[in-house]
Amino acid sequence: MIRGKSITTKVYENEHLIVVMDIKPINSGHVLIVPRKHAELLTDLEDNIAGEMLMAAKKIAIALKKSKLRVKAVNYFMADGAEAGQEVFHAHLHVIPRYRSDGFYLHMPPGYDRETSRKELEDAASKIRAQL
Amino acid sequence: MIRGKSITTKVYENEHLIVVMDIKPINSGHVLIVPRKHAELLTDLEDNIAGEMLMAAKKIAIALKKSKLRVKAVNYFMADGAEAGQEVFHAHLHVIPRYRSDGFYLHMPPGYDRETSRKELEDAASKIRAQL
Repeated sequence: MIRGKSITTKVYENEHLIVVMDIKPINSGHVLIVPRKHAELLTDLEDNIAGEMLMAAKKIAIALKKSKLRVKAVNYFMADGAEAGQEVFHAHLHVIPRYRSDGFYLHMPPGYDRETSRKELEDAASKIRAQL
Repeated sequence: MIRGKSITTKVYENEHLIVVMDIKPINSGHVLIVPRKHAELLTDLEDNIAGEMLMAAKKIAIALKKSKLRVKAVNYFMADGAEAGQEVFHAHLHVIPRYRSDGFYLHMPPGYDRETSRKELEDAASKIRAQL
């Protein structure tokens, strides 16, 4: 579906979603939760479909932890937009098996360790609240 | 709520969730979607609460993009378990504003660029399917 039917390995599907193996896994067992209906971004999806995506991710994470794959913990990751690292422009949520010292980590921006003032947080919060 | 009431900057709340500013933002406008009811992991949450978390993330992302903050794209990130980078053991979903060259990226494990065979993907998929 995402990358051509011939190379899709399906794990699960329901009315609204399909779950497939990522063909370039971060760790073995890395899957993608994909809405059937086309939407480029999470922000383009209907609320109920967005909700079902995280419910499906939960279901898959439980199965991953019970499985014989190497899974001590799980990350959920999604990118809305090229500047967030999105490469395939059909919304998809990554479910990524993790284990200690697997070599996957988040690289933080410069200045991440500086102190953030209460005022900065309040300013950002008020800018968000103004659009809600 | 997560890190003590005195330093919580609230953005939004509803019956099941509270949305607060991350006190150590990756970029300005970084928020956390937090269920009111305690659960350590996404996999411990009731389905409807899990679903509401991603619906709330969507709502916040739409507001972020309309806001005066620097937001070209958005990442959604969640860690279930210490090996996935979880540090606060109350389930929370990160909504992270992104812009080009902000310095935040995913560091992939060694071997990430090797070819993954169809057989490996099928083996992993069958191990997950066996637990669904």
